[in-house]
Amino acid sequence: MEQHLFVLVDLLGTFAFAVSGALAAEQKRLDLFGVAAISLLTACGGGVIRDLCLGALPPVGISDWRYLATSMAAAACAIWARRLIAHLEQPILFFDALGLGFFAVTGALKALLLQQNVEVAILLGLVTAVGGGVMRDVMLTRVPVILQKEIYALAALLGAAIQVLGHYLEWRVALTPWFAASVCVALRLLALRYSWSLPVVQGRDRADR
Amino acid sequence: MEQHLFVLVDLLGTFAFAVSGALAAEQKRLDLFGVAAISLLTACGGGVIRDLCLGALPPVGISDWRYLATSMAAAACAIWARRLIAHLEQPILFFDALGLGFFAVTGALKALLLQQNVEVAILLGLVTAVGGGVMRDVMLTRVPVILQKEIYALAALLGAAIQVLGHYLEWRVALTPWFAASVCVALRLLALRYSWSLPVVQGRDRADR
Amino acid sequence: MEQHLFVLVDLLGTFAFAVSGALAAEQKRLDLFGVAAISLLTACGGGVIRDLCLGALPPVGISDWRYLATSMAAAACAIWARRLIAHLEQPILFFDALGLGFFAVTGALKALLLQQNVEVAILLGLVTAVGGGVMRDVMLTRVPVILQKEIYALAALLGAAIQVLGHYLEWRVALTPWFAASVCVALRLLALRYSWSLPVVQGRDRADR
Repeated sequence: MEQHLFVLVDLLGTFAFAVSGALAAEQKRLDLFGVAAISLLTACGGGVIRDLCLGALPPVGISDWRYLATSMAAAACAIWARRLIAHLEQPILFFDALGLGFFAVTGALKALLLQQNVEVAILLGLVTAVGGGVMRDVMLTRVPVILQKEIYALAALLGAAIQVLGHYLEWRVALTPWFAASVCVALRLLALRYSWSLPVVQGRDRADR
Repeated sequence: MEQHLFVLVDLLGTFAFAVSGALAAEQKRLDLFGVAAISLLTACGGGVIRDLCLGALPPVGISDWRYLATSMAAAACAIWARRLIAHLEQPILFFDALGLGFFAVTGALKALLLQQNVEVAILLGLVTAVGGGVMRDVMLTRVPVILQKEIYALAALLGAAIQVLGHYLEWRVALTPWFAASVCVALRLLALRYSWSLPVVQGRDRADR
Repeated sequence: MEQHLFVLVDLLGTFAFAVSGALAAEQKRLDLFGVAAISLLTACGGGVIRDLCLGALPPVGISDWRYLATSMAAAACAIWARRLIAHLEQPILFFDALGLGFFAVTGALKALLLQQNVEVAILLGLVTAVGGGVMRDVMLTRVPVILQKEIYALAALLGAAIQVLGHYLEWRVALTPWFAASVCVALRLLALRYSWSLPVVQGRDRADR
């Protein structure tokens, strides 16, 4: 059962990140194939790093057709439903936030299912959630999401931590992922909406290389 | 026999990408060692990702001396034969196109030899072909090749797909790689020469982060 | 005994790179959590690539709590001891140089302990030493250290080579790492101080993509 649940949440994250990747690629005026490629990279990049670190090879993102199909469907949606999506205020960031939540959970969950320790589970949750978006931004020479001032990586960490906590406290297996992902997505969206940010370390005055 | 053929094609791709990396590093006025390092990274980056995903460790790019020797020889050629190379219109893109073709084939071929499925073979062909060039551009803060408008990743996908098709249709083992690589290189060079590009998704008017 | 020595040198490198990452993140005005995240990435990025290439999974950087604790302690030091650190001329480059030396040694040493060949040991020394700093600069959109003109990667290569040489010549196990790391750090710091650089390949006149 856990396996099915895992795949479902992982595909939801794949869909959300694929949309954000496709939108970002469109904005940079890439051609149709470029949009599909960046969409796939954004959707599967985080999961590939997770699977490499866990030794779960080949990574599901490149070996399981459902991930490829989900990415391509998401890219097609992003292109065809552009009018609808345009009603969102910042569509890329919105779908990025959704993916962040789902992948924080699946990164942690897969590590736990493979008997890894708490630290691996939480850090892989963070890395899986953040990885795809960072690759998208590096490839498209956009300012990386992690440099933006609203709470981002902390939301992913929180989502992963809740999933791990639920696992050890034996919360209901079928509900924990949804709860953890919701907290992460809600925190990120609220941070964007109300410009929540953590304190900034006061910068030095001197220029420094 | 397939093993020897694989190494030959892989070394040809290594040579071509090493030249493109060396030329790009020279242009950024890196020192001699920097040129050698970027050359090696460009040449072996794609193959290392391929081997990590296939669990073929340690990656041949860092464990087999022939790859290192080929990269260094290519970097030396790029430096000493500068006058000759300068007759080419866009030397970096020319050698990048050659490497693209060879690596699309070896990425797919190695996956097939290791009994992976069709999807893994085609996607790893694409990733192997594109990986080194992307790393080169990210390290040197150049505009990534994938953002340029002429057909690029599609050519790599086509090369990988032909190699996979040939494998399943049992074409002559010794000829398939050359045919697949030629199609990829020809498509890429023609796209550069005649500015072939795929349709661009019509951009949004509104600014969007 | 070698195992303990390895962990000690690896943690020293982790500390140094974590400080450099935290300082660079502060400079880009990231929030507290962003500083911690970049600090961890800089500190563990090189080691994670090393472990992925060696198949030593999961990478110690994400599975051994001492690495996480060291990174966090280093980030805290970088924030609280800012006044002290500010007396250094170029704090980021100084700590980067320290990390470079320690990681060149541990990259080579771990490969040797896992019975890899000389080439793998030297190249992984180089990659481990350079990897974290490159990730830091790419994530923060800084000019990558490798593009700067003073000797950088060559120092890492030298450190790794000395460690490998000492291993084969059976120098005293407890002293070799310190000697190799010192040579690397000294070369890098002297290069920064006296602007030592390798010859640059004379650039082409023609513009070239």
